Amino acid sequence: MGGHICILGGDGYLGWPSAMRFSALGYDVTVVDNYLRRALCARHGLDFLYPVPRLAERTALWEELGGRRIRFVELDLAEPENMRALFDATDYERLCGAPWPGEPETVLHYAEQPSAPFSQRDYRCTDLTIVNNLRVTSNLLCAVRDLCPHTHIVHIGTMGEYGTPDIDIEEGWLDITHKGRQDRFLFPRQGASVYHTTKIMDTDLMWFFVRAWKLRVTDLMQGPVYGLETEESRRHPDLRPYFNYDDQFGTVINRFIVQAVAGYPLTIYGKGGQTRGYININDTLQCVAAAVRHPARPGELRIFNQITETFSVRELARRVQEAGRRRGLDVTVAHVENPRTEAEEHYYNPTYKALRELGVVPHPLDDEVLDGMIEVVQSHAVRIRPEIIFRPAVKCETRKQE
Amino acid sequence: MGGHICILGGDGYLGWPSAMRFSALGYDVTVVDNYLRRALCARHGLDFLYPVPRLAERTALWEELGGRRIRFVELDLAEPENMRALFDATDYERLCGAPWPGEPETVLHYAEQPSAPFSQRDYRCTDLTIVNNLRVTSNLLCAVRDLCPHTHIVHIGTMGEYGTPDIDIEEGWLDITHKGRQDRFLFPRQGASVYHTTKIMDTDLMWFFVRAWKLRVTDLMQGPVYGLETEESRRHPDLRPYFNYDDQFGTVINRFIVQAVAGYPLTIYGKGGQTRGYININDTLQCVAAAVRHPARPGELRIFNQITETFSVRELARRVQEAGRRRGLDVTVAHVENPRTEAEEHYYNPTYKALRELGVVPHPLDDEVLDGMIEVVQSHAVRIRPEIIFRPAVKCETRKQE
Repeated sequence: MGGHICILGGDGYLGWPSAMRFSALGYDVTVVDNYLRRALCARHGLDFLYPVPRLAERTALWEELGGRRIRFVELDLAEPENMRALFDATDYERLCGAPWPGEPETVLHYAEQPSAPFSQRDYRCTDLTIVNNLRVTSNLLCAVRDLCPHTHIVHIGTMGEYGTPDIDIEEGWLDITHKGRQDRFLFPRQGASVYHTTKIMDTDLMWFFVRAWKLRVTDLMQGPVYGLETEESRRHPDLRPYFNYDDQFGTVINRFIVQAVAGYPLTIYGKGGQTRGYININDTLQCVAAAVRHPARPGELRIFNQITETFSVRELARRVQEAGRRRGLDVTVAHVENPRTEAEEHYYNPTYKALRELGVVPHPLDDEVLDGMIEVVQSHAVRIRPEIIFRPAVKCETRKQE
Repeated sequence: MGGHICILGGDGYLGWPSAMRFSALGYDVTVVDNYLRRALCARHGLDFLYPVPRLAERTALWEELGGRRIRFVELDLAEPENMRALFDATDYERLCGAPWPGEPETVLHYAEQPSAPFSQRDYRCTDLTIVNNLRVTSNLLCAVRDLCPHTHIVHIGTMGEYGTPDIDIEEGWLDITHKGRQDRFLFPRQGASVYHTTKIMDTDLMWFFVRAWKLRVTDLMQGPVYGLETEESRRHPDLRPYFNYDDQFGTVINRFIVQAVAGYPLTIYGKGGQTRGYININDTLQCVAAAVRHPARPGELRIFNQITETFSVRELARRVQEAGRRRGLDVTVAHVENPRTEAEEHYYNPTYKALRELGVVPHPLDDEVLDGMIEVVQSHAVRIRPEIIFRPAVKCETRKQE
């Protein structure tokens, strides 16, 4: 099985595990990345928990360990000509030094600046996020429309596009009755950061291209992901996805585990009533594979809510605290001022059924998962730099200096 | 009356008339433009109906005719540092060669690539539109947040953000009841072009900044504007706004008038049932002045629907045909294939009350207005280049060349 799949942002926390998964499933995989995330982390001194080789090494290691060859090209996809080169046989062969594997059946689009705090750290970070995320999405849509319109685009959105409305969250769409008339619309969205807002804007733009040119697009509204080991990464530690635990690029569960191991209090923003849907990285891979196996139809923007279960931050902290105590760690919890624009207590009732209907079997956050994560983090405990776990909240540069 | 008002895109069809109007009302006016629209028109051979002097000349002429001095600076606001310079006394004085008139009370944001057909002419035009429109909006929001958070931002959106839903269009917001619960959201939006989608994205981004940092923003959802003479431009023909009649930058009524005068059939896309809300340029100026006089509150995104009346394209063509016949012109109508993604017959019932409640007195499209427009266009008839009125529809570069 498997045709050609092109993974944009293939160096990333989800990009690389996806590349290995599709390779293992028999696809011809091309990964593209410009190492933006690594560059930003390096510039701001935000180390990964463990060293992660770059793609030339990781793809070679994967092949050495019996995996199918994964092609890699370093390219800034914010430049339209670079994006278009991926869809042209001659350009592809020149760039990748490998035979053209045919038009991609699927493009998996992860190539975005993924951090909410970073996206509003200051005006330069906002500009970078807007330009990178929207140009890559727009360039991809134009390239697919112009050069291979049958390709299925799978985009990673975020549950954060919906925010925390006072009504139940449906999977992407809402039938609205108003003054006795009815129509169907994208579910209302309002994000809690510039980053989340760029994902809303992505959805707006994809929806236009789908209507205008009958593209096939799946938008996966994903919750915060946790985990650091996938079926494929178990073949070698150098195949693990990178793992941030800082307050810019780290996600909440990964951060809590590191805080627990480092003897640092689990930091909760405000009261910690913020409830979100979470997902294990292995379930993300299942969901993405299901979306790829069952593509959207031409002219369809298909939206799935990609989460396994919902927790409040308080509840998560309690779970990690218990897990830590099982392993002899003295884990405390600290409430800090919330640097985000979000309600700390709110209604939250999202629907997430469609991916299960495509055969995804969800794995909840259980003791075994938490214990496994703590074990890996403990094995790298000497590398933890407590000073990057949490820095005093910088809401942003809000005034000129007096 | 009047403080300092900064007009971004101050060379434009609405920008320059607004500059004169606020100057006449006693405001200190600074206009900023990078002449993008002129450059695009020149590059694509899309002449204005009559020559329009650049801003150095127009501001000098305005002053010579007794107007207050209008400051002008040529600046690309897609660069964040350029945007920020406008809000800093030292930078302002260096750039404008004039004393700092104080923090702007209002920024009027017209600095966007305004053509729907141009925005999807090919992938390069799409990239230019996305980058220009979103960076300028994002840079403005960051600059106001960081450097003068009390400034009221007035942004020109478009009625096209709403598209043509099967429900009544409200002014920006909609109360939604779903499964027995209720919340208030931005009215659902889906545009009919890349350009319209950038305006939707602008609204998403402004709404985030308003919630996060309590900015004051008014978004004016405007319909297609017509007209070529304002109270101030009557002082001298060189003060008229520029006037495009081509199929990229011309708006429908202006184009119809030119077609009527040129003896060219009025071109209707498809059946011409497309119904939209229209507004006279003089009413636009009234609306903008009302929004400036009554600013949004801190933390308020205020949305007004800025139209005077609705017409179908068929009906507009009939009105122009009659007006032409009154002046002895033999005006015919031709239906051509619709190059746009839009329904040709649809429900359309927008609300537009709020601006009237602020004192705007609407002027409908009557015979006098049409006759006046025909008269001015006739006086420039020798300059009309029929070959740019309408070119065979290029939906976009949809396939690679075989």
